[in-house]
Amino acid sequence: MSTPDTVADPEGDARRGTRSRAQAEVALRRCEELSLVTSRPGRIDRFHLTPEHARANALVGGWMQDAGMHTRQDAAGNLCGRLEGREPGLPALVLGSHLDTVPDAGRYDGPLGVMLAIAVVERLRGHTDDLPFAVEVYGFGDEEGTRFSTALLGSRAVAGSWRDDLWDLTDSGGTTLREAFVAFGLDPDRVHDAARDPAEVVGYLEAHIEQGPELEDAGLPLGVVSSIAGARRFHLATLGQARHAGGTPYPRRRDALVGASHAVIDIERIARSRNVIATVGQLQAYPGGVNVIPGRVEFSLDLRAEHDTARDAAWEAIQGAIHARCARLSLRFVSEEAHQAPAVTCAGWLQDAVAAGIRSTGQRTVPVLFSRAGHDGMAMAALTDIAMLFLRCDDGISHHPAEDVEADDVTVAVDAFETAVLRVAAQVQQ
Amino acid sequence: MSTPDTVADPEGDARRGTRSRAQAEVALRRCEELSLVTSRPGRIDRFHLTPEHARANALVGGWMQDAGMHTRQDAAGNLCGRLEGREPGLPALVLGSHLDTVPDAGRYDGPLGVMLAIAVVERLRGHTDDLPFAVEVYGFGDEEGTRFSTALLGSRAVAGSWRDDLWDLTDSGGTTLREAFVAFGLDPDRVHDAARDPAEVVGYLEAHIEQGPELEDAGLPLGVVSSIAGARRFHLATLGQARHAGGTPYPRRRDALVGASHAVIDIERIARSRNVIATVGQLQAYPGGVNVIPGRVEFSLDLRAEHDTARDAAWEAIQGAIHARCARLSLRFVSEEAHQAPAVTCAGWLQDAVAAGIRSTGQRTVPVLFSRAGHDGMAMAALTDIAMLFLRCDDGISHHPAEDVEADDVTVAVDAFETAVLRVAAQVQQ
Repeated sequence: MSTPDTVADPEGDARRGTRSRAQAEVALRRCEELSLVTSRPGRIDRFHLTPEHARANALVGGWMQDAGMHTRQDAAGNLCGRLEGREPGLPALVLGSHLDTVPDAGRYDGPLGVMLAIAVVERLRGHTDDLPFAVEVYGFGDEEGTRFSTALLGSRAVAGSWRDDLWDLTDSGGTTLREAFVAFGLDPDRVHDAARDPAEVVGYLEAHIEQGPELEDAGLPLGVVSSIAGARRFHLATLGQARHAGGTPYPRRRDALVGASHAVIDIERIARSRNVIATVGQLQAYPGGVNVIPGRVEFSLDLRAEHDTARDAAWEAIQGAIHARCARLSLRFVSEEAHQAPAVTCAGWLQDAVAAGIRSTGQRTVPVLFSRAGHDGMAMAALTDIAMLFLRCDDGISHHPAEDVEADDVTVAVDAFETAVLRVAAQVQQ
Repeated sequence: MSTPDTVADPEGDARRGTRSRAQAEVALRRCEELSLVTSRPGRIDRFHLTPEHARANALVGGWMQDAGMHTRQDAAGNLCGRLEGREPGLPALVLGSHLDTVPDAGRYDGPLGVMLAIAVVERLRGHTDDLPFAVEVYGFGDEEGTRFSTALLGSRAVAGSWRDDLWDLTDSGGTTLREAFVAFGLDPDRVHDAARDPAEVVGYLEAHIEQGPELEDAGLPLGVVSSIAGARRFHLATLGQARHAGGTPYPRRRDALVGASHAVIDIERIARSRNVIATVGQLQAYPGGVNVIPGRVEFSLDLRAEHDTARDAAWEAIQGAIHARCARLSLRFVSEEAHQAPAVTCAGWLQDAVAAGIRSTGQRTVPVLFSRAGHDGMAMAALTDIAMLFLRCDDGISHHPAEDVEADDVTVAVDAFETAVLRVAAQVQQ
């Protein structure tokens, strides 16, 4: 991988490059240190409202304070740091990303965006006389939805789009979201205190690894996001009859796993043919005896596309195919929607600020990317304008321990992110 | 369902019929009572070397004592009761079945055979002057293999075919078989004390529900088993790469669950075409995030057939198909054999005794059945001659809460089982 020269460093100052490199290395070291906050040593499992969530907030909160921010944990368990602008109490430009992970995660999906935001604040502190807004950094407590199958619980609380039917969500151990709030020391009845008034917020900017291969294929470290795919998630199940593996001749079998296996293959075939991304990430057969025909198989479906209409049409086709298949196999098929997020378009003026930030590093071509992955910005878009800066990642790998970034790319990202914030400041001043 | 008249009751005594009915009802009530010994209230989960295993041994041991037996728990955790014959210390005719269950089990698979054996002992006590052998009843601690994926751990210890490589088997929580022995209060180094000397044993008879539909289809309550299918069990896995569900375009995906789904379908297709029974009862996708492409899927395979050669040829074909499929999908396929039991033929002279027992109830036609399900007799065949009595069960359902038997069928089974034991006594006398 080659890194472009930073020919257009706006300060024209070699010291800035040295400082950027040092800050990038700190950000990477902090991602490494945070990766040790896990419920399973040897891998990264950091889930919503767990003891690891609390430890992550404490650790990252300390770094925010070192950067000059006042910190608090909000009523939904999100970590929030604030640096005042040229006077106290101004509306805030919000930067951020999430601190939770998928199971057996990489180090950078989420945390790197928080660390880059902290690095930008470090640069701004001591130069806030002209800053026409406060800067806040959020470390959201749930973006992935790993524990409760419903994503963006942290940023939805901040955006004011919390719904009371969320309380009955349960994790795999049967704990409800309400119980998990209480166990974490939060008061469920006060979750709405986490919501921000739109008048208090200038906009939302997030830096994130691309989680795809396009920047690497283009040989460029940074890109700006145009829109974020709208994901829908479903709980699916095929229902047959659990019977003895040996004693039941084939004509009497109603094997729910055979049905679910056909469903997984149908889902991939239909999605591929429609340029939609479909993933079955969870699947489990019940009762789960080696010598018992599965009577029930539960599996997840995550569907996303650049346009909601394509995604929704694919879901109709998938449902039809699975129902028809199950009817032939004497099985039942049931589905329940667990999560729905419409596709979100990034605000043009904030995209321009991010693109200007990228160009300030000397990168002449600024790829405009569509994000197939969901991000906290999707929820924040209900509150304020949003935009995103994407960083190249190794082989497009994410949600995997092999997730990796180049220190050179993180170095230019610090510069680009700071410049984007200053561009927003210039726009707000006018 | 009609029940044949018991025209050939050898005692010619109506009281016997009344007593048989009462004993059948006791046996069914005991199955019901034992079903409450479970690790999950509301369903039946009774697994090897758990607190429920200990409670089951205590409960059933009390019933054995009520029937006049001396009881002990052997060095492998099996429950064993003994009724002496015409003099103490004679070799024993062993009756029995298992007390462990599959997950979310029915009430009768295993326990009914133990309860019927206890009922036979109740009848024999007080009439042991002519009995040329002791009668022992085993309640084996593991037949299903639910906890450690390897079946027949209880009866293998008794048969003297324990292997030291079993100690490293682990359950889903990572506990080894050795650790489970210790936690149960057993000394792993003494497991061989559970093994019986072939000279101490006359033979092994087991009563069991059919777990298939053949007796019901024939309209007959009882049958004799000719042979038991040889099962092979495998741990299989497809290996791809865990990646972000959204960010990874299809050409870059190596989805282990798509591979495993094709494998499940291939397995069924190949087995059906070869008259082999193949079951994938366990399947789980890892890392198991709703928004992560599965990088690894682990699944089980249980293969059984009347003839070992057909079963082994099917396994070769299945392996070939899955390897070819995985190669096309850029996945790896790995397999490990967890269990292998050769098909076992029941001894002719014991089959004759069981058939005579069935005929003594007035059932003129005696179906000779091949058992596709495995049984403790498979392991006991390494120690002594074996035979089995099968009881009709409702709709052939087993390994499911809906498992059911008719009280009328259990009534004739008590008579048939006792007569079979007396026939064996007559043969041994000669």
